[in-house]
Amino acid sequence: MSAWVDVPPASDFPIENLPFGVVRPRRDNGSGRAAHVVVRIGDHVLELAAAGIAPELTAQPSLNALMAAGRGAEVRLRAAEVLTGAERGDWLHEVADVEVLMPIVVGDYVDFYSSIHHATNLGHIMRPESEPLLPNWRQLPVGYHGRAGTVVVSGTPVVRPSGLIAGADGIGHLMPTHSLDFELEVGFVVGGSRAARIRPDDADQHVFGVVLLNDWSARDIQGFEYQPLGPNLAKSFMTSISPWVVTLDALRPHLVHPPVQDPEPDPYLRARRPWALDMELAVDLNGTPVTATNFATMYWTFAQQLAHTTVNGATTGAGDLFGSGTVSGPTPGERGSMIELTWRGAQPLMLADGSTRAFLDDGDTVTMRGWCGGFDRNAGPRIGFGEVTGTVLPAQT
Amino acid sequence: MSAWVDVPPASDFPIENLPFGVVRPRRDNGSGRAAHVVVRIGDHVLELAAAGIAPELTAQPSLNALMAAGRGAEVRLRAAEVLTGAERGDWLHEVADVEVLMPIVVGDYVDFYSSIHHATNLGHIMRPESEPLLPNWRQLPVGYHGRAGTVVVSGTPVVRPSGLIAGADGIGHLMPTHSLDFELEVGFVVGGSRAARIRPDDADQHVFGVVLLNDWSARDIQGFEYQPLGPNLAKSFMTSISPWVVTLDALRPHLVHPPVQDPEPDPYLRARRPWALDMELAVDLNGTPVTATNFATMYWTFAQQLAHTTVNGATTGAGDLFGSGTVSGPTPGERGSMIELTWRGAQPLMLADGSTRAFLDDGDTVTMRGWCGGFDRNAGPRIGFGEVTGTVLPAQT
Repeated sequence: MSAWVDVPPASDFPIENLPFGVVRPRRDNGSGRAAHVVVRIGDHVLELAAAGIAPELTAQPSLNALMAAGRGAEVRLRAAEVLTGAERGDWLHEVADVEVLMPIVVGDYVDFYSSIHHATNLGHIMRPESEPLLPNWRQLPVGYHGRAGTVVVSGTPVVRPSGLIAGADGIGHLMPTHSLDFELEVGFVVGGSRAARIRPDDADQHVFGVVLLNDWSARDIQGFEYQPLGPNLAKSFMTSISPWVVTLDALRPHLVHPPVQDPEPDPYLRARRPWALDMELAVDLNGTPVTATNFATMYWTFAQQLAHTTVNGATTGAGDLFGSGTVSGPTPGERGSMIELTWRGAQPLMLADGSTRAFLDDGDTVTMRGWCGGFDRNAGPRIGFGEVTGTVLPAQT
Repeated sequence: MSAWVDVPPASDFPIENLPFGVVRPRRDNGSGRAAHVVVRIGDHVLELAAAGIAPELTAQPSLNALMAAGRGAEVRLRAAEVLTGAERGDWLHEVADVEVLMPIVVGDYVDFYSSIHHATNLGHIMRPESEPLLPNWRQLPVGYHGRAGTVVVSGTPVVRPSGLIAGADGIGHLMPTHSLDFELEVGFVVGGSRAARIRPDDADQHVFGVVLLNDWSARDIQGFEYQPLGPNLAKSFMTSISPWVVTLDALRPHLVHPPVQDPEPDPYLRARRPWALDMELAVDLNGTPVTATNFATMYWTFAQQLAHTTVNGATTGAGDLFGSGTVSGPTPGERGSMIELTWRGAQPLMLADGSTRAFLDDGDTVTMRGWCGGFDRNAGPRIGFGEVTGTVLPAQT
C-alpha cells in the first residue's frame, strides 16, 4: 500500500499509521479557520470533511463525535482509500500550515500506577523502612482520578505550580514547587457508547486510540497533601498529551503478552489475548537523552485497567482517558521520572551542556517520543506517536 | 413580591428561590419532547425559552451553556419578572407533567473532606491507634477528584457495587460490597469562564449554584484499594445530586461566618466575607429520620475549596462540581454517614419497622433534604433544595 503523498522514510506517520488529530488553518484559506478532524500522513494532514468522509463527524472541533459514533475504523479506512486512490483533491495540507490542537474533550481521566519497577522505586524512596509494594499492588491496578480540565496538547508551556510545602516544623507554606518532575506515560482514549463491566479481552471494542502522556508532578506538594485521599494539587495543574491519536488498529501488530503476573489476579482481571504493547519510549531534557524504555514491561495492561475501572458498575465512554502510570523499566537507565533517575536528587543528572538537575529548572524542555516497530527492529513499518513536549515557565506570583 | 402561580406555603420553591433545572415533557405537547432549561416555582416549572428568555441558552439539554455565559442572574431576574408580571403565557407546566433530568454536564468533580467532626470520626474508626486528624488536615482542605461521568440525578437507583474485598488472609476477592453507605454532602456548581488562582472572597463570581449530593460509598472496597493514591472504585460507581440548582443569589441571606480556624490558614485560604451556609440538612432511611445537622458547622468553606483547587494554576470552569465532603455535626445524632452513625456497625441503627442496619440493605431508600430559613426559624422565606433520593438494587452478577 503506498500513498500518492510523499512520506519521508523515517516518518512516524506512514500510510499504515494514519492517526487522528484536530487542526485549524493558520490562515483563513477561504473557508474560515474552523477546527476540524484530520488524519496525519508523513508531513501532511488529510482534511476528512473536505474529502467527503463522514463530514457530520469530522467537521468538528474534537474527535469526540467520531469516537462516540464508533466509526473510527471505517473513517480511517476511507481515508486510506482516498490517499491511495486515483483522485487527488485539494484536501491535503502541510502540517506546518496548520495549528495542531487538543484532539479530544476529556471526559474522565484516570491515572494508574502500573509499572512494577516505578512503584518499587517510589516505595523505596518514599517509605524506605517498609516493603516497597503495598499489599494491594499486585492484586489490582491501583489508580486515581486526575483533573480532566487541565489535560492539554503538546507544546503548551507548564507554569511551575505553587502549593503548600511543609517546612521542618511541619507547617505548610504556599510556595512554588522545588521538585517539579515529569512522568513518562502512555494514554488510552476510550470511544463508543458508555459501557460498564468490560472484560479485558473486549478492550479493543472500547479503546479508540493511544497517545503519549506527560503527567507533570510536584513531589513536595504531593508529599504534604496526599494522605489520606491521594494526590490532588501535585498533579492537577497540567497533564500533556501528544496530538496524534494512534488507533489500536494500527498498533495491532505490536500487541504482545505482558509479563506473567504473580499471584494470578482475580478472574475479572484475567485476559487470554495479548494486551501489552511493544512500544519504544524515550525522553530528552533540553536535548539530552535521559531515559529510554519499552512499554511492554508494564505489569498491568490497559485492558485490565479498563476492566478494573468498570467492574463496580461505573461506566466509561467516548473521551475518557486512561493514563498508564509512569513507565519505568527494570534498569536504572529506564526510569520514567526525575525522582527515580536522580533518586530524589541524591544522584543529579548531568546534561549535555554540563549543568546538573535534581528536578526540573525554569526554562527546561521535556520531550517524550514513542514508536512501535520500524527501522529500529525491522518489524514492519514504524507506527510512531510523534512527541509530547513542554517547557517550564517560572511560577506566577 | 408574589407570583401569579400558587405556591403552597410549605414549598421549598417560593418566588425568592427560583432554582434552575432541566426537564422534558412526559408527553409530546405539540413541540416535541426536547429537554430544556426551566426555573422551578412551587409545584410548577417555567419553560424559559418558551417565555422568550435567552432561548439560545435555555433551549438546551443542560445548564452548561447558561452557566458558561455567566448569565444566570439576569435570566433568573427575567423569570421572576415574568412570574410576577401581567402577561400569563402558556409557559408553565406542573412538575408532575415533566420528567426531571440531570441538570448539568459535569466537568471535573472534586470531592472534599471538610467536616472536622466527620474527619475526626473517620480517623477514630479507621486508625484507632493514632491521632484522628492527619497533620495536613487543619492546613488545607483535603480533597480528591471523583468520577464525573457517574454523577446522576436524584431518583436513579444505585446498584450495589462489586470490587476486591480482602479476606482475613489479605487476599482480595471480587464480591458485592457488604458495607454500602451514604455520605450527606452539599455540592457547588461552577459557572463562568475558566479561571485559576481564585481568591476566596471572589467565590461568588464563580459559583453558579448549590445542590444536595449523596456520595455513595463502599467502605470495604475502599479499605483494600485506597493506599497510596486514594479512593477509586469505592466511590466511582455513582454519586447522586438533587435536580434543582439553587443560586447563590437566592442563598445570600443565609451566608454566615464559618467556625474560627485554628491555626489560621495560609493567606491564600483566608476570607473576610462570610462563606459558610446556614442550611439545615436531614436524611431518612426508608422513612425513618436517621440524622440531621447544619451545614454551617463545616470547617472549610466552598470559597476555600475553590481557592485551594486553583492556587496551583489549575483552572475551573462551567460544569465543574465541588462536593463539600460528608457533613457531620458535633453530636452523635448529626453524623452524615452510616459508618459514623453505627460506628462501623458496632451500634446498629433501628428503623421504624423494627429492623436494624449496620450498612445499607438491598431495597433501602436514602433520602436527603436541605433548606435555608423558612418556617423552622422565621428567618424569611424558605429557600429549599428539594431532595436527593435513591434506592439500593441488588448487585449485578
